[in-house]
Amino acid sequence: MIEALTSYQQRNNSQLDAWLNQLPHQNQTLIKAMRYGLLLGGKRARPFLVYITGEMLGCKPEQLDTPASAVECIHAYSLIHDDLPAMDDDELRRGKPTCHVEFDEATAILTGDALQTLAFTILAEGELSTDAESNRIKMVQALAAASGAQGMCMGQSLDLKAENRQVSLAELEEIHRNKTGALMKCAIRLGALAAGQKGIDVLPQLDKYADAIGLAFQVQDDILDIISDTETLGKPQGSDQQLNKSTYPALLGLEGAINKAHTLLNEALHALESIPYNTELLEEFARYVIERKN
Amino acid sequence: MIEALTSYQQRNNSQLDAWLNQLPHQNQTLIKAMRYGLLLGGKRARPFLVYITGEMLGCKPEQLDTPASAVECIHAYSLIHDDLPAMDDDELRRGKPTCHVEFDEATAILTGDALQTLAFTILAEGELSTDAESNRIKMVQALAAASGAQGMCMGQSLDLKAENRQVSLAELEEIHRNKTGALMKCAIRLGALAAGQKGIDVLPQLDKYADAIGLAFQVQDDILDIISDTETLGKPQGSDQQLNKSTYPALLGLEGAINKAHTLLNEALHALESIPYNTELLEEFARYVIERKN
Repeated sequence: MIEALTSYQQRNNSQLDAWLNQLPHQNQTLIKAMRYGLLLGGKRARPFLVYITGEMLGCKPEQLDTPASAVECIHAYSLIHDDLPAMDDDELRRGKPTCHVEFDEATAILTGDALQTLAFTILAEGELSTDAESNRIKMVQALAAASGAQGMCMGQSLDLKAENRQVSLAELEEIHRNKTGALMKCAIRLGALAAGQKGIDVLPQLDKYADAIGLAFQVQDDILDIISDTETLGKPQGSDQQLNKSTYPALLGLEGAINKAHTLLNEALHALESIPYNTELLEEFARYVIERKN
Repeated sequence: MIEALTSYQQRNNSQLDAWLNQLPHQNQTLIKAMRYGLLLGGKRARPFLVYITGEMLGCKPEQLDTPASAVECIHAYSLIHDDLPAMDDDELRRGKPTCHVEFDEATAILTGDALQTLAFTILAEGELSTDAESNRIKMVQALAAASGAQGMCMGQSLDLKAENRQVSLAELEEIHRNKTGALMKCAIRLGALAAGQKGIDVLPQLDKYADAIGLAFQVQDDILDIISDTETLGKPQGSDQQLNKSTYPALLGLEGAINKAHTLLNEALHALESIPYNTELLEEFARYVIERKN
């Protein structure tokens, strides 16, 4: 699967590069900062989910480039804003200086703003298969629902409010279901919608799979923040503890968190069982989520 | 026209309020801050442009609520982010504490982010007339093109770079064509697209009108920053000068700027002449733009 991940990373990078090249004012700081935030590293987990879901349903990669690029723009903008001094105040991301360190704070705010907009430009203007054209507005709805006050932004807001206080397991899940889960689920939904009616038919199972791996992804992030090192992570190890963030290991113990991740993996795999297509890559991705080292 | 403006303000406010009420987590800070940023005052010039353009072309107000609400969400988000300490560092907006003063900086960043997303949710989910349904994706394209690196965000970035240095008249126009012009033009385009093919047919004339009043709006803003007072403006008088911003009065003198505003008014009125509908309200709005006191 790692081979496929690398190949889709490269595909996604060149797609995003092409979108950036179409913008006017190429020599302006804003465009340079957008390129910096969008193209310097990153696993591209969300685009990968778009591709493997869509291909499972019979799409060609070029029919999935549009939603894959759009969802990555939303993810990239969220990282830039989350790293700001007023938010998590991180200086390192993917092993490089964060956007506001490399440029300045005003540029980082605008860059995030413009990357969010670019996501919707891509989804509204990019190529789709003929089957998927009738789902285009549904894709815009899904991306917006996952990104804003019903999803990612709400998750980040709940997360900020949870700093320096003890939260319950239910609250922690509510935070992460919104903060990271919503956009990963959206990536899978976009891959399904790009396949037309076929995709809509398996949305319930895919949603269950997505809920489980979205949460597992966060549990593993929390675990890695404790057991990994800064170089492997590409960001400071132990930063959750420094910010007094509630985490799964803090609530469940390290072993409890590892068990939780495995329970979620089993839920994800179970959800795939009734999908009448080749779910191999989705299975492998679910395992990767809880086995990855960074 | 002021009567119509007030009536559409109220209509727009209740529409936006209804959209906010649909969001989950109503008691969360993020939602409170979105409501604060969206509903506390404001002329609602952009929604007004959507309504008067669409009605001129035969739409009913309820067929225009969706684009009017969407464009105002983009405007509101841009104000919240522009006011941030790293940007213009303003403490007063529409006579009230700015969002980051009333709440905090992290909340203000997230609130802007979530309002941008809400704009696309509204445009993708809100009601449209049957005629306009086929233009829905064009509306999303237009709003995204006006808001991001091809429009408003680029304008704000160019504006920040222009602080503390002398810019040419051409550079100043490029800044404002993007920073304020693009979204006002978009409001008019959305009003036209909401009317279906009829609207598309008169887009060239409407674009010319929009270019002229968009620039005139900024020229008048610059003039008011000098000749008005803080109470009337609802924000500190003289703040452009404090930030060493290039302005039309600085480049053309006060009289030159007033002449420029009148030239632009005439261009706007001229563009309306070949539109075969009742353009009275658009004419009145153009006059209002350069005669308003705040």
